[in-house]
Amino acid sequence: MRLWHETPAFAGVTGEPGVTRGAEPKGKQMAASSVLKIGLAGLGTVGVGVLDLLAAHGELLEKRTGRRIEVTAVCARSRNKARGGHDISRFQWFDDPVALAREADIDLLVELIGGADGPAKAAVEAALAAGRHVVTANKALLAAHGVGLAEMAERASGALNFEAAVAGGIPIVKTLREGVAGNRVRRVYGILNGTCNYILTTMEREGRDFADVLKEAQELGYAEADPSFDIGGDDAAHKLAILTALAFGVTISAGDIYVEGIEAITLDDIRYADELGYRVKLLGVAVDTGEGIEQRVHPTLVPKGLPIADIKGVFNAVEVRGDFVDDLMLSGRGAGAHPTASAVVADIADVARGIILPPLGRPAATLKPFVKAPMRAHEGGYYVAMSLRDEPGQMAAVARVFADEGISINSIIQKARPADDEDKVAPVILITHETLERAMREAIKRIADEGISVGTPRTIRIERFD
Amino acid sequence: MRLWHETPAFAGVTGEPGVTRGAEPKGKQMAASSVLKIGLAGLGTVGVGVLDLLAAHGELLEKRTGRRIEVTAVCARSRNKARGGHDISRFQWFDDPVALAREADIDLLVELIGGADGPAKAAVEAALAAGRHVVTANKALLAAHGVGLAEMAERASGALNFEAAVAGGIPIVKTLREGVAGNRVRRVYGILNGTCNYILTTMEREGRDFADVLKEAQELGYAEADPSFDIGGDDAAHKLAILTALAFGVTISAGDIYVEGIEAITLDDIRYADELGYRVKLLGVAVDTGEGIEQRVHPTLVPKGLPIADIKGVFNAVEVRGDFVDDLMLSGRGAGAHPTASAVVADIADVARGIILPPLGRPAATLKPFVKAPMRAHEGGYYVAMSLRDEPGQMAAVARVFADEGISINSIIQKARPADDEDKVAPVILITHETLERAMREAIKRIADEGISVGTPRTIRIERFD
Repeated sequence: MRLWHETPAFAGVTGEPGVTRGAEPKGKQMAASSVLKIGLAGLGTVGVGVLDLLAAHGELLEKRTGRRIEVTAVCARSRNKARGGHDISRFQWFDDPVALAREADIDLLVELIGGADGPAKAAVEAALAAGRHVVTANKALLAAHGVGLAEMAERASGALNFEAAVAGGIPIVKTLREGVAGNRVRRVYGILNGTCNYILTTMEREGRDFADVLKEAQELGYAEADPSFDIGGDDAAHKLAILTALAFGVTISAGDIYVEGIEAITLDDIRYADELGYRVKLLGVAVDTGEGIEQRVHPTLVPKGLPIADIKGVFNAVEVRGDFVDDLMLSGRGAGAHPTASAVVADIADVARGIILPPLGRPAATLKPFVKAPMRAHEGGYYVAMSLRDEPGQMAAVARVFADEGISINSIIQKARPADDEDKVAPVILITHETLERAMREAIKRIADEGISVGTPRTIRIERFD
Repeated sequence: MRLWHETPAFAGVTGEPGVTRGAEPKGKQMAASSVLKIGLAGLGTVGVGVLDLLAAHGELLEKRTGRRIEVTAVCARSRNKARGGHDISRFQWFDDPVALAREADIDLLVELIGGADGPAKAAVEAALAAGRHVVTANKALLAAHGVGLAEMAERASGALNFEAAVAGGIPIVKTLREGVAGNRVRRVYGILNGTCNYILTTMEREGRDFADVLKEAQELGYAEADPSFDIGGDDAAHKLAILTALAFGVTISAGDIYVEGIEAITLDDIRYADELGYRVKLLGVAVDTGEGIEQRVHPTLVPKGLPIADIKGVFNAVEVRGDFVDDLMLSGRGAGAHPTASAVVADIADVARGIILPPLGRPAATLKPFVKAPMRAHEGGYYVAMSLRDEPGQMAAVARVFADEGISINSIIQKARPADDEDKVAPVILITHETLERAMREAIKRIADEGISVGTPRTIRIERFD
């Protein structure tokens, strides 16, 4: 009850001379609604970015939302660390984020601690239980506990906003929740991890190896010391799980995602793809197949000439296909202190304006249970790179296996064998027409088992974009 | 007052078992809030698209917004025309949109009549005066009267939503109003007219002339019988004027736009641009220069490899640069019955959910007066195509004029003179580095006046995207 009175939708014009609208708040509520008090849990790069933004644009935000937005309490691991020039001694200090969430004089908790469980979850739950709104950038938390937290927020009439959890500064959560509210969404896919996209585009542009570019990305701070969460695809999978729920109105099911990272992508793959008219991107793809939801994160060949193929460096992009709007693409910076702060503050501004919606776009109790579509039924084309023994009849053997499995070949590149190649193997690259995942797996297994190729052929999926 | 009670932000969960939130509506209001009654003025392609969408997704919308959305009254020029299979006899009929707006039992008017003045304006004003919300797709109306109508809506506590007025199905109004609320926007630009983009991309892809493709576009219904409003740039200018106000928080000033259409773009220009690494796009560009706002609509050379260069056919795209979010691009279908209906219904859904914001993103009274930046101070590179007399010294003369004006040349293509060319002129194409508009105009004038070129050189701006 309390939150509602503190955030009237027309707070935006309260006190604006000559403009009165909506239900007049009573005296006491009016005073309460003039400032939106923020508790900030987590003062890492994004937390400092939020402080930067509120310092730079406090007045602008007051004009836009009708309320002053003020950080009043903070919590971080260390009280004495430098925070980008911000004097945090003017904020109420808490050592414990749960205490901040529960006890501080705040209307809204911004959770920037991270992690699916532990203090982040405890603080968010405490805030919602105490009748406070929550804004979070925590994709792991949402992917693991999003539906339960959404139910808590709905019971408490509170906001649980998480624009910054998916694709950084890109307003894709708002777009799915509001912008395409009149659509049944059939598919959503995107470049959801900036580290991977940086590595892949740098490999292509500079003709460098994966390991080499990864090392540089780590030095530049684009990749973590332990990069496996990004390059293995798990980060993108968390984001995809959240997008799936918003897009299709189903429960979040982060466990039901086929995940394949970019670790095995070679510079040769990128060069051959280029020759064949494609770029290699790590995509997260969710499709409502009619028999269930298919969720996958894997390297994908994307035809050059599609806008998503030109998304470079640390940028992210998400494409949504709705049955009325058709294809809609949003792209922008998927990470970084200021772009992420932009999303966090947009979420805060929504609360200041009284925009408080069911977190997953409809009441959590009305979400359909997630039903997984069988992955092996996926239809699409494939890129296949194999090393054939340089003997007569090997290409014929490959062609026979593919024909047996009912797979039709679209194009082939056979590379001349390097002069110094003692193994006598020739690289052959195939692009297949659409085929079933099942058939493809069988063909690859046979080509390896029958000794037609040296080692197991590498495959990369080609996504249908029609 | 009335509207507010009819659209509580928590209407979305009213009656949802086990979920109660927010201020309990009183009995009478509860009944009123269960259905959002729509009056539809205009039953052309978009109007029928809205009927299609509401028929297809009524239940989905009720889940998402918590309210049933029902058309109860309609108005169109002819009562007996076929309306895509919809039986319009079940709706209350009005001959006069103003009567519909004023007298029908509706909560919200959807205005799809079109035109800056006349019945569209009268109906919108009547609806706002009668305490009804308004959703419109009418860019001409907004460009001409947006600020005044926004003030009316604010006084009446009503919504005036116009997502469909700019870039069709793309949620760019919501993105500027809400998604980037924490940013000072420095620049917004985009492909805002699908007809022009269809013509330019078809010319490039099929190597056909402007006139030829225009004729086909008219036959396909992508261009009007009188195409001048689209190809002359005025349609894009209306949309740009609305974007400018939302992006920079200034009053709408559709008169202060430099407008140049695509009529003069030749197939040669497109081919030369291609050789030089560019595509030709009709862009609307608005920049906050610090000394004022620069608004322009004109053909522009866009470097290939930027996502906006790959926006094809009737698609639109808008790129926003905010100081925190950095570059954000949205692309999608800019026209068509169903994409436009998607935007109209998203606007209706916002009202059903109680999201009612100042139409221009902040109270109209707080918009800064539009101040025009001097166009001649624009800095950027140029494409220059000229026909030089095939005589010794002409290139040197060109180089001298450019040097005199302080313009530095980036690249040159000189084409061999066709064998059958009796005029003895050689096509020469230059790309300049950044220069002032003023210097460029002077150089072009001199090259023509001094008879160095046959006819006046054609110029196309190159946009800076750094």
